Amino acid sequence: MLRSMNADKDRIETLSINAIRFLAADAVEEAKSGHPGLPMGMAAPAYLLWKEFLRHNPTDPTWPNRDRFVLSAGHGSMLLYALLHLSGYDLPLEELKRFRQWGSITPGHPEYGLTPGIEMTTGPLGQGISTAVGMALAEVMLAAEFNRPDSGIVDHYTYVIASDGDLMEGVSSEASSLAGHWELGKLIVLYDNNHISIDGDTELAFTEDRLARYRAYGWQVLEVLDANNLEAVRKAIHAAQAEATRPSLIAVRSHIGFGSPKQDSASAHGSPLGTKALQATREKLGWIYPPFEIPEEVYRHMRGAVQRGQSLQSEWEARFTRFTTETPELAEDFERRMVRKSLPDRWEQALPSFEAGQQMATRSASGAVLDAIASVLPELVGGSGDLTPSNNTYAKGMYDLSPTRPMGRYVHFGVREHAMGTILNGLYLHGGLRPYGGTFFIFSDYMRPAVRLAALMGIAPIFVWTHDSIGLGEDGPTHQPVEQLASLRAMPNLWMIRPADANETAYAWRMALSRTEGPSGLVLTRQKLPVVDRSECAPAEGTLRGGYILKDAASPRAVIIASGSEVQLVLAAQIQLAEQGIPVRVVSLPCWEAFEAQSASYRNMVLLPELPTVAVEAASPFGWERYADAVVGLDRFGASAPYKDVYSKLGFTVDAVVEQVMEAIGEE
Amino acid sequence: MLRSMNADKDRIETLSINAIRFLAADAVEEAKSGHPGLPMGMAAPAYLLWKEFLRHNPTDPTWPNRDRFVLSAGHGSMLLYALLHLSGYDLPLEELKRFRQWGSITPGHPEYGLTPGIEMTTGPLGQGISTAVGMALAEVMLAAEFNRPDSGIVDHYTYVIASDGDLMEGVSSEASSLAGHWELGKLIVLYDNNHISIDGDTELAFTEDRLARYRAYGWQVLEVLDANNLEAVRKAIHAAQAEATRPSLIAVRSHIGFGSPKQDSASAHGSPLGTKALQATREKLGWIYPPFEIPEEVYRHMRGAVQRGQSLQSEWEARFTRFTTETPELAEDFERRMVRKSLPDRWEQALPSFEAGQQMATRSASGAVLDAIASVLPELVGGSGDLTPSNNTYAKGMYDLSPTRPMGRYVHFGVREHAMGTILNGLYLHGGLRPYGGTFFIFSDYMRPAVRLAALMGIAPIFVWTHDSIGLGEDGPTHQPVEQLASLRAMPNLWMIRPADANETAYAWRMALSRTEGPSGLVLTRQKLPVVDRSECAPAEGTLRGGYILKDAASPRAVIIASGSEVQLVLAAQIQLAEQGIPVRVVSLPCWEAFEAQSASYRNMVLLPELPTVAVEAASPFGWERYADAVVGLDRFGASAPYKDVYSKLGFTVDAVVEQVMEAIGEE
Repeated sequence: MLRSMNADKDRIETLSINAIRFLAADAVEEAKSGHPGLPMGMAAPAYLLWKEFLRHNPTDPTWPNRDRFVLSAGHGSMLLYALLHLSGYDLPLEELKRFRQWGSITPGHPEYGLTPGIEMTTGPLGQGISTAVGMALAEVMLAAEFNRPDSGIVDHYTYVIASDGDLMEGVSSEASSLAGHWELGKLIVLYDNNHISIDGDTELAFTEDRLARYRAYGWQVLEVLDANNLEAVRKAIHAAQAEATRPSLIAVRSHIGFGSPKQDSASAHGSPLGTKALQATREKLGWIYPPFEIPEEVYRHMRGAVQRGQSLQSEWEARFTRFTTETPELAEDFERRMVRKSLPDRWEQALPSFEAGQQMATRSASGAVLDAIASVLPELVGGSGDLTPSNNTYAKGMYDLSPTRPMGRYVHFGVREHAMGTILNGLYLHGGLRPYGGTFFIFSDYMRPAVRLAALMGIAPIFVWTHDSIGLGEDGPTHQPVEQLASLRAMPNLWMIRPADANETAYAWRMALSRTEGPSGLVLTRQKLPVVDRSECAPAEGTLRGGYILKDAASPRAVIIASGSEVQLVLAAQIQLAEQGIPVRVVSLPCWEAFEAQSASYRNMVLLPELPTVAVEAASPFGWERYADAVVGLDRFGASAPYKDVYSKLGFTVDAVVEQVMEAIGEE
Repeated sequence: MLRSMNADKDRIETLSINAIRFLAADAVEEAKSGHPGLPMGMAAPAYLLWKEFLRHNPTDPTWPNRDRFVLSAGHGSMLLYALLHLSGYDLPLEELKRFRQWGSITPGHPEYGLTPGIEMTTGPLGQGISTAVGMALAEVMLAAEFNRPDSGIVDHYTYVIASDGDLMEGVSSEASSLAGHWELGKLIVLYDNNHISIDGDTELAFTEDRLARYRAYGWQVLEVLDANNLEAVRKAIHAAQAEATRPSLIAVRSHIGFGSPKQDSASAHGSPLGTKALQATREKLGWIYPPFEIPEEVYRHMRGAVQRGQSLQSEWEARFTRFTTETPELAEDFERRMVRKSLPDRWEQALPSFEAGQQMATRSASGAVLDAIASVLPELVGGSGDLTPSNNTYAKGMYDLSPTRPMGRYVHFGVREHAMGTILNGLYLHGGLRPYGGTFFIFSDYMRPAVRLAALMGIAPIFVWTHDSIGLGEDGPTHQPVEQLASLRAMPNLWMIRPADANETAYAWRMALSRTEGPSGLVLTRQKLPVVDRSECAPAEGTLRGGYILKDAASPRAVIIASGSEVQLVLAAQIQLAEQGIPVRVVSLPCWEAFEAQSASYRNMVLLPELPTVAVEAASPFGWERYADAVVGLDRFGASAPYKDVYSKLGFTVDAVVEQVMEAIGEE
């Protein structure tokens, strides 16, 4: 009897695993494009993880306490779509048939916000595992904040399936080191150790001792010698769960394209198997069903996830009800942050304003803003890539996060800008937190893939990029951004905000925190700037519209536009021009993207397109032709010298601006 | 007598080491800016390395067989300037006094090409150590190519001083893994293990077992427990030299800001010590000299490097003379590549041309170009970030580089785009090789800091970026470049070349290989394109000018500009418009930077600024306002579907181009 039950269990397990394999292989075949290799090789461990371990509710993918699952090797998307479909998510078979087609919710790589149950967009290697570190960190931070001795409101695992490529990418090295440092025991990574990369055997370029490397990061490392040995996988996941203070890497020896004639070869990775090989695979694995036909018993078996998930969620909701009774304010805060995802009412009132007359770098103003708002925004968590004193990212009342102080809201990322970007993404994606992180603006180059992924996913971490131009001075051209502004303005859905003074900086924070549909980059000076005297200029609130008339003149003959530190320069030029009898308008344009979102009539009202327009920005002029007839910009790399020297030697002087305006209006 | 000699030796050593420390601390003090901590902490091991090990000739920094020395922690630039000055390089004391000042050759971070003896620009952390991997690889490759059993023409070490920050950055993980894989036994890294980062103790964020990690990469790991123990450092470097097949990491426990009251604290890192602390340091270390006064005996001691270097170079030159006699062609090739840095005469004749009528992706054309030129350019070495079959980077006749086949000219980088970038830089900087490397264009985001450093240094590696737009189709928005073209066009000194067909691709390679003053990015399609029928169009040679009239019309009423795959689209639009009685000119603009380098009259002749101009590019329109009144571009991320669907759904159709032109000329 027991034997027969076991045999039944074996049978339905094998059937379910093969259902995943063939959904993947057939969908790739139908699309004539895609990656069958990973789903076929990792179907068994993925099946087991989802069937026996993953605590999730297919009918409510937003349940706050669900386990997170990240397919870091996003090219294996069909594995995930198959699991979601079979487990009962709102992902009908029709969509699997439309894999990789226009308008389907089954794109080539999993996309956050498009398909129910997708925790993040993956595909660019290294991003998934590194972002998952952020999710696991969020769990620890929120658990510390919300859990009470008898009520575990936040208590879940973060699971990842990662590939060789994920482990080769530097960003995963950075993030994995931090995961070990933070003792993220509930982070469990299944490493698809299939020995194959696109160029061929991993022996070609990946001979390091990966397991020793992960041990060096402070991880528990486990091995499963055969991906299809469910008992071994089960044992490893149990061991991973049992380890409280070390993240776990389970190296699962798998076979890419398992069961197909192309098994264990690079050709199984990224192309359809082809009719013949697919038929041979059916025979080899004993799969008698035509494409996209799944035996009813597989559905029955897999969709147990629905009832199980609903029951798990109900238990949690009962706990949450008790939590609400016992600590109503805490519960309200949790709901606001995790469910409604809103900021506290009237939080903006905490934003400081700054008196004219002082000199203040916008990075310092940013620090003052953080000091002021950290206490009213409990969800605010920040950090820096080892430039805390330079980025002014540490807010009053925050203290350092560490394994022994998980309530700390300040994160030291070390010199790991890229991982910082992915972890900010993960903290945001988890829900409940509003993360920001600082580094020098030049090092935005190091974190660009993470910034792009935030923009693509439409999530709103905040990047605090200080030392924003040649104005950083002596550190020289390696550290002076030139093309970074243009290059990031070109990225869809990223707001780049470069405030002109302390008060614009406060509004910049307001804009960035009010955004929920995309990331923002705050671009801040190292050098001190005067706080603009608003009695003579328009209020800084204009910042919210991206651009505004800062200081007008009667019957202006030209418009000068600037952002950031160069606004001071053009204000001075305006005075000098006025003395020469030439009235000009000064426009502050801290954020192109917000400005573009205004009506055409507002934009024209501000820019007066019929007038000659000169733009001034200590950066590449690339892109400024959109607004200006002439640009005082920088078409070369910077230079090492005190910043005032660099400014003047590279042509950023009042005289140069005046001259350019004169030329533009034809008075040379 | 022996004791007295030893005491003398100790004394002059200490004096020399302190000279380095105080040159650094005083120069930083004078500049009121800079990083005294590293030079003071690492002065002793750096002194020893330069005095006893480094084989270099201060009077000829271009000697091909010199040991390479890279200060990866570039912020410690004064360490390097002090060593160069004391060893007899053409770096006078006056320049050290002008540290970090406008026009000096002692900028904040070491700059390649500016100061004699600087092997590369460093400062952005992780770049130095990772680029040094490329230098060490170049040594291995060239040794395999040029050395004969009795004549070692290429035989040198590559030394690095790296910091905690260097080891935290992901790029160094990637590159170090490759260094282990390639068994680069002559790469020796002194790791400045000072326990301090800007945010404070490295315990804040860097608790991984670094030494175990490096062992996992296949490195020999050695420890020196006290940086000031010269005998221990000596022993470690000897052990590193003795190890033939493993790179060596020597972890040197040092004390940042050694000898100063700020020793072992973050405040010693990046600011002047201050008058008081500096005076206290003088007292503590017994340094009795005023700023910038160096005892003559230190100069005598250190400038032994000149005679030693000249003698080393002479010995080598004698070997080279014999080498020239025995293998004149090989010697000529070596000189051409290492000294004259020129390409073989008439190499361009090997470039293929392609017949109209065929369909060919530009990535395939690029592969055909490589097949054709690899045999005439022995210096050409290539590779890919694990996308060889997709990037078409493997040329006929190349075979895989591996530890047992150092003659291989094809490098498998694994999924490590960033390290690939740094290693291409290192291969180029070493001299003797012309490196290129491929990945998907989207992953240029991963390698951006290396690309920027190439542009800043003015060196000419070639980045082969295929799958250049939404034209890659099903892989979807994570893999479809949108903003990458604009974002890289904004970078000074990088040439972005996006050829329209196979023949433009051949010229693109010619441009990239002819450049010596900066890097080039080739931006190539995945999808097939027709080879333009040149009997109806201008010759592809126009590519060399960046932009040219591809197909004109009599009395054109508008100009349509396109690059890459969209040139086909505008050629079709031109025909359709002609049928409607509207003659338009078609301009192919594969390379903005080359075009901008043309005369204004040429540019105006091509663009006819008085006519309405429409640009068409399947990418962000950002920046196109420079040339066009209207742009058919992409202001959003892409989508996953077959590429023809993506093109049409996102508005890249002949009809859309025609419509845009009609609107531009006022005929709606």
